[in-house]
Amino acid sequence: MDVDDVSQKPHDRLGAWLAPDMDRVNVLIRDRMASRHAPRIPEVTAHLVEAGGKRLRPMLVLAAARMCGYDGPFHVHLAATVEFIHTATLLHDDVVDESAQRRGRPTANLLWDNKSSVLVGDYLFARSFQLMVEPGRMDVLDVLCNASATIAEGEVLQLTAAQDLATTEEIYLQVVRGKTAALFAAAAEVGGMIADATPAQVAGLRDYGDALGIAFQIVDDLLDYGGVAETIGKNTGDDFRERKLTLPVIKAVALADADETAFWQRTIAEGDQAEGDLSRAQEILARHGAMEAARADAIAWAERAKSALDPLPAHDLRDMLVDLADYVVARIR
Amino acid sequence: MDVDDVSQKPHDRLGAWLAPDMDRVNVLIRDRMASRHAPRIPEVTAHLVEAGGKRLRPMLVLAAARMCGYDGPFHVHLAATVEFIHTATLLHDDVVDESAQRRGRPTANLLWDNKSSVLVGDYLFARSFQLMVEPGRMDVLDVLCNASATIAEGEVLQLTAAQDLATTEEIYLQVVRGKTAALFAAAAEVGGMIADATPAQVAGLRDYGDALGIAFQIVDDLLDYGGVAETIGKNTGDDFRERKLTLPVIKAVALADADETAFWQRTIAEGDQAEGDLSRAQEILARHGAMEAARADAIAWAERAKSALDPLPAHDLRDMLVDLADYVVARIR
Repeated sequence: MDVDDVSQKPHDRLGAWLAPDMDRVNVLIRDRMASRHAPRIPEVTAHLVEAGGKRLRPMLVLAAARMCGYDGPFHVHLAATVEFIHTATLLHDDVVDESAQRRGRPTANLLWDNKSSVLVGDYLFARSFQLMVEPGRMDVLDVLCNASATIAEGEVLQLTAAQDLATTEEIYLQVVRGKTAALFAAAAEVGGMIADATPAQVAGLRDYGDALGIAFQIVDDLLDYGGVAETIGKNTGDDFRERKLTLPVIKAVALADADETAFWQRTIAEGDQAEGDLSRAQEILARHGAMEAARADAIAWAERAKSALDPLPAHDLRDMLVDLADYVVARIR
Repeated sequence: MDVDDVSQKPHDRLGAWLAPDMDRVNVLIRDRMASRHAPRIPEVTAHLVEAGGKRLRPMLVLAAARMCGYDGPFHVHLAATVEFIHTATLLHDDVVDESAQRRGRPTANLLWDNKSSVLVGDYLFARSFQLMVEPGRMDVLDVLCNASATIAEGEVLQLTAAQDLATTEEIYLQVVRGKTAALFAAAAEVGGMIADATPAQVAGLRDYGDALGIAFQIVDDLLDYGGVAETIGKNTGDDFRERKLTLPVIKAVALADADETAFWQRTIAEGDQAEGDLSRAQEILARHGAMEAARADAIAWAERAKSALDPLPAHDLRDMLVDLADYVVARIR
């Protein structure tokens, strides 16, 4: 892979730059995932960890640490920590209640069962806490523990807010921080901390992760309703069918007339959906400019992410993070 | 409650001695359980935390700290930490797979759902880690993080070992440490640590908690098959019906002839149980002296718990912990 190839996607360029570090992260992950006593654990986690996601969270830790001049060993531990937390969260997200299980999602639950997903997730959480203790930095521990609490709180909030038409954009942001942005923010922040970056740099890294995560989620929301361009995402309509109150819908609900309120009440709050409802939802979203407004929000968050990096030193990795923020919203430009 | 009333049970006497501390623990638990954003959290946890269990784990922290002369504030944080870990574990234990759900246990799942149990449990774990960071003691963090990993590993191990007739006493002990003893041991150990007890005292406290937890679990196993005396526990047969390989059964399986092996294979490994099987299991356990042998083990662990306290200073609380170890096995004497 050629690092100088500007046609590469930003996360591929990050991956290439950080490859030696990421190799060490992967070795550490496999090492700490192992369990002498309970071989089921690597069975379940390999399914997720080896699946090879974009590894964006560990790369944020590594990039932040490296651009701030870190050359110690512990950015690797912290990168593995955030990947463990992320993997544990995925396992626990896969736990379904009875009704969802009937829909037969191809989750870890179908390969094992709810109880394995829960307990192996707990094991990964416990392992992540062991890892985060190792650098011996109380400030880092604070950040990661607080992120864990924000994640869990956001997940619970989502349970209750998901189908509640009274959900505001403020609540939406809290949920998104729990789902995505809190771990992005903590990853970038602890990377800076371990490198003894200045407080302004650490705060900038945190804001970058937070804003990037929020932009990322809003783009996801938009693509699920087909995006603003003609390109239709392959998952179009999943959020609608799963009755998720995403940002475009929240904006449209706030502007709804009586008919539309009844429509959202029936389809989202009550889950009574029929043929043609998704198209009608898309029409309503377009009519109120809800898609355009959410698009503007995503772009503003991406801009905020980029300018948050202003206090950071000039560095290839910094440029890649700037490009990454642009790339996240490029699909809805 | 009269502290001098020797007829009181040891944990009631501990509770009376530690009442002012326990009041502070309860205030802290309620405070940290609260969630501004997700009111479902205290709803779910109050169900467990307010139910008023024996609070043995936080009392072990407090008793260890106090008998070692601690007069700072952080034993309260650590006591709340272990109660949060315990409560989170209970919530996650309540998550059932589909087959178990059909049996309709009256768990938190019936009041809410699997997903709430998982996510609120995660929130309590995250809160417990925030709490354990606050004293600023890396050694305490190590102990509690390691205990969390042992608990999770033991729970996963139990999933796979539960109905496997090849389960050895060694694996049984690992499972029991995960289920009970690891948190008892960590609770007592961090109580000593926060009080800057000597290494020998800290090790003694740890061994006490470990041995007490193991004795506790073996007694539970025995009572579930009716105990060794005539007293029949009200839960008699639950472990058999749930096909748990408890210590008496493991001992009997090791000594089984071909007929008996076929019996255990059918009833435990395959779960094909009929009228009269429980009585036959009890007969087999008695024939091989499996109940007596497990009883001897429990008593030996209780003795080990008591002598582990030898390095600790003379103190009312130490005497109560000694009495507690005797009390745990008194029901099978």
